[in-house]
Amino acid sequence: MAIVLGGNRYGKAEVRLVRVDRDSARHELTDLNVSVSLSGDMTDTHLTGANEKVLATDTQKNTVFAFARDGIGSIEAFGLRLARHFVDSQEAIHHARVTLEQFSWTRLEIDGEEAPHSFARRGDGTRTATVHYDGTQAWVVSGISDLTVLNSTDSEFWGFPRDQYTTLAETKDRILATAVTASWRHSTTETDWDASYSTARKSLLSAFAGTYSRSLQQTLYAMGERVLQTDPAIAEVRLSLPNKHHFLSDLSPFGLDNPGEVFYAADRPYGLIEGTVLRDDAPPAGPAWD
Amino acid sequence: MAIVLGGNRYGKAEVRLVRVDRDSARHELTDLNVSVSLSGDMTDTHLTGANEKVLATDTQKNTVFAFARDGIGSIEAFGLRLARHFVDSQEAIHHARVTLEQFSWTRLEIDGEEAPHSFARRGDGTRTATVHYDGTQAWVVSGISDLTVLNSTDSEFWGFPRDQYTTLAETKDRILATAVTASWRHSTTETDWDASYSTARKSLLSAFAGTYSRSLQQTLYAMGERVLQTDPAIAEVRLSLPNKHHFLSDLSPFGLDNPGEVFYAADRPYGLIEGTVLRDDAPPAGPAWD
Amino acid sequence: MAIVLGGNRYGKAEVRLVRVDRDSARHELTDLNVSVSLSGDMTDTHLTGANEKVLATDTQKNTVFAFARDGIGSIEAFGLRLARHFVDSQEAIHHARVTLEQFSWTRLEIDGEEAPHSFARRGDGTRTATVHYDGTQAWVVSGISDLTVLNSTDSEFWGFPRDQYTTLAETKDRILATAVTASWRHSTTETDWDASYSTARKSLLSAFAGTYSRSLQQTLYAMGERVLQTDPAIAEVRLSLPNKHHFLSDLSPFGLDNPGEVFYAADRPYGLIEGTVLRDDAPPAGPAWD
Amino acid sequence: MAIVLGGNRYGKAEVRLVRVDRDSARHELTDLNVSVSLSGDMTDTHLTGANEKVLATDTQKNTVFAFARDGIGSIEAFGLRLARHFVDSQEAIHHARVTLEQFSWTRLEIDGEEAPHSFARRGDGTRTATVHYDGTQAWVVSGISDLTVLNSTDSEFWGFPRDQYTTLAETKDRILATAVTASWRHSTTETDWDASYSTARKSLLSAFAGTYSRSLQQTLYAMGERVLQTDPAIAEVRLSLPNKHHFLSDLSPFGLDNPGEVFYAADRPYGLIEGTVLRDDAPPAGPAWD
Repeated sequence: MAIVLGGNRYGKAEVRLVRVDRDSARHELTDLNVSVSLSGDMTDTHLTGANEKVLATDTQKNTVFAFARDGIGSIEAFGLRLARHFVDSQEAIHHARVTLEQFSWTRLEIDGEEAPHSFARRGDGTRTATVHYDGTQAWVVSGISDLTVLNSTDSEFWGFPRDQYTTLAETKDRILATAVTASWRHSTTETDWDASYSTARKSLLSAFAGTYSRSLQQTLYAMGERVLQTDPAIAEVRLSLPNKHHFLSDLSPFGLDNPGEVFYAADRPYGLIEGTVLRDDAPPAGPAWD
Repeated sequence: MAIVLGGNRYGKAEVRLVRVDRDSARHELTDLNVSVSLSGDMTDTHLTGANEKVLATDTQKNTVFAFARDGIGSIEAFGLRLARHFVDSQEAIHHARVTLEQFSWTRLEIDGEEAPHSFARRGDGTRTATVHYDGTQAWVVSGISDLTVLNSTDSEFWGFPRDQYTTLAETKDRILATAVTASWRHSTTETDWDASYSTARKSLLSAFAGTYSRSLQQTLYAMGERVLQTDPAIAEVRLSLPNKHHFLSDLSPFGLDNPGEVFYAADRPYGLIEGTVLRDDAPPAGPAWD
Repeated sequence: MAIVLGGNRYGKAEVRLVRVDRDSARHELTDLNVSVSLSGDMTDTHLTGANEKVLATDTQKNTVFAFARDGIGSIEAFGLRLARHFVDSQEAIHHARVTLEQFSWTRLEIDGEEAPHSFARRGDGTRTATVHYDGTQAWVVSGISDLTVLNSTDSEFWGFPRDQYTTLAETKDRILATAVTASWRHSTTETDWDASYSTARKSLLSAFAGTYSRSLQQTLYAMGERVLQTDPAIAEVRLSLPNKHHFLSDLSPFGLDNPGEVFYAADRPYGLIEGTVLRDDAPPAGPAWD
Repeated sequence: MAIVLGGNRYGKAEVRLVRVDRDSARHELTDLNVSVSLSGDMTDTHLTGANEKVLATDTQKNTVFAFARDGIGSIEAFGLRLARHFVDSQEAIHHARVTLEQFSWTRLEIDGEEAPHSFARRGDGTRTATVHYDGTQAWVVSGISDLTVLNSTDSEFWGFPRDQYTTLAETKDRILATAVTASWRHSTTETDWDASYSTARKSLLSAFAGTYSRSLQQTLYAMGERVLQTDPAIAEVRLSLPNKHHFLSDLSPFGLDNPGEVFYAADRPYGLIEGTVLRDDAPPAGPAWD
């Protein structure tokens, strides 16, 4: 028996990069959080501390800023540029993962006119991407996080088994609320990333809003299915949906009814529903989800 | 010398109340965080633990939910209802403060049509209110928090004194970004709260966007002044503006220039600019800001 | 009627300063979060953006690091040094407030021996201080935050009034838990700050643990009183104690009793008890609590 | 081509359970955050919303509280009890994962004596466990998180490659700080969990403190190796170590040197070093790390 080094990776996490495109008086803003993770021939640094093959995480950070000088474009394209650079330029690095978050901003107005260089940060969802590259092949996963949505009716939950620990009443009308974290794997590395993201976002929201729900699982499947139906270049969708419980407040002690109007929004515990929807001929995922 | 009880208050904090108005098929959503703080003749409970005069914080919570059964309206009006109830119904309670946060939601669409009961949470500012009532008089402060804004140009900072610890370079062009926390004191308890909030929010944003800034203090004053100019019923505005620094990335080691395009968004430390703008004939603030 | 500038201040917030004392092989670690807030003759920068009187917040940050070169000592002494420097060296600055947080670390062991330069961060309370200086007089408030404590019995709550919204059952045995935020005002600027802090911390904890409680207010008063009893140089104590509710889980549907053993720890809402305990001959607080 | 359901699971997350053992006057406190995740024959609920096979997450929560009535013991044992119950009692559930966090508390003192039922929460590491059970086999992973440690010297970083984006200076003396997240996989489901945890924690800390480090990777490997060396029943260790950068403050503009004494503690970006250390004859991991 011997003790050995297993899987490992390292990199610079959470590089907060903001780019202003100022080619015209009407500025454009790109606000990113970029994390790089590299792996390869890293045995020496683990066993002896020799760093000949370790591209410093500070260098990785510098690279992110330097590459932004040429423009960013979509986060998927920027991630691909960075991932390919790290693997192709460093012999000891065999695999790069770049994960990116893009915070969205909306343009302010001055006297009813769009302001040329003034913005407010929006909070209705962060666009995300994860890119893998191994020197030969690349994988791209896009996604969204921090998108909190709520249906105030058209949600039921009943027919579940009742064991000795079951006390929950069945309901034909409840609030259904969740904070969407969704990721979708592309079957190509050549697509119109911005258009694809916009379509996927709309698909998720319209499926959430339009599904009469008997379980959050049913809503989850509908959301994933809709993304696949509306973009043939997407192979697989993964969703993580916390069931943000809203409990009907019992007002009967105060002589009041409560016909689905007054709720207590609970923090914890919460349900957590996770699921995958995919094409049965989806290409292998490889390291895409690592 | 004796040890004595000084100022004190108690209450239930962060009651997470969601109300659905479902009079028609088109639901309306009100999402609040309500905190109650009461004070009065509370010596006994501090000195002996006798609770005859302590309205349980659980009762306060119940009251918030029960009062929501009749509808909420604006947070200012709801806060006034609650504050008056606590003081007027309990002899031992001489003062009530109710603070409220309202999280904003936007209506989702299904196939280009507004969904009747589906919503997404927005993140561009939380509406706030603090109401005080002492049995005779009431004070109302409205506000906004968590509103992050950014100007990508039209901001300078120079002409500041240079002492032995000064290394900062002067600049004629920088990013100016801040997370606005603003509160404004009304000189009346009778106003159209929703209209007033909407006007104040617009005033803050248009003043931020429209001010060519030589210091964040100048922008702060312009924002407060605009709120006062556009609503005669507001007596005083207080702003707390963190200067969210965006540092120009030095790309010269890589043979690149950086004409105001690539920035590092720093977390800490940050500048913090706090100031008050008021009418010189503003009525006394009383306990409004406590 | 005119619109005018009211109270204002500005400064650098959250300077994360770590100092290693390495005079001997046994290093000492000081881990601080320092915030500076200055006020004075700041009308120009608000009205015209002229910055001749604005000591840049970057300069303030530099000063914090430079002053640390000579050693830090207690946070109260370090705050006094900084506050006096800013007011005494800048004609336009009439008042300085310095707030400091000190994160505590404990020494690691290697094979049962204390390690000379290895530490683990503790999470049982952050030491705090706020210093004010106006060019003539200084005020010092010390404190502690993020100190979560729990009594698993010896806490009752009953005898409270029952109005139409009261449903809470009386209890003769409950868990009492809180996250202590306490601050105490010194009547002097010359004291042994470290010894004073150590005594105050012990007093708070022993009063919390040793008080048979009929209300959290009673516990609060006992904690403040104990601090005053054990340090004659402390004039006033302010405490903010969230009542972190632990609800007895109802196991009766499962045929089980629950004699005070199984609890659900709730997040929100929570009670919030705030109070002041002071000497009746305490000197005026001045700006100490601003 | 068809769209199909892929991997999925669901459950109740973050059940905040506190248990008081009060068999004697000296109480014991167990403070847990428990999350359950079940999978099995869940196609119906995803496709049609039929819930006959869905054990309600509310029932899962109830089960956690009910099982605590009999005592908790170690989190590994409690997780095994729960996981086995869910799979063995529900035909449609084929796999259970239970993850647990245990917050640590220390006993308070009153007048130098240990208090019988008073505690303060510690912040020096949260004990964690993840248990999987598939109806036949069980897998147990133990761990620790939120354990922040720092070496103030005996850390170097040099010899790394310099490409066109490298600006970092080499150093022979730096602060090395990290927030440890470590997990270790047991090769058995029968062990003394508390003793094993205690040994592993000590091994991690003594290896961190005792390793003269030329890279954080080297320290990571030493930490994992030590855990394996000191417990033959542990097969594999995974570590995630953010490199919490402490930058030497440049005091030269102020005429001061800085011989490794004054540092700025940065928030973001940070390095992130992840690695696995294992026995070359470790049994297959199965779903242990899912």
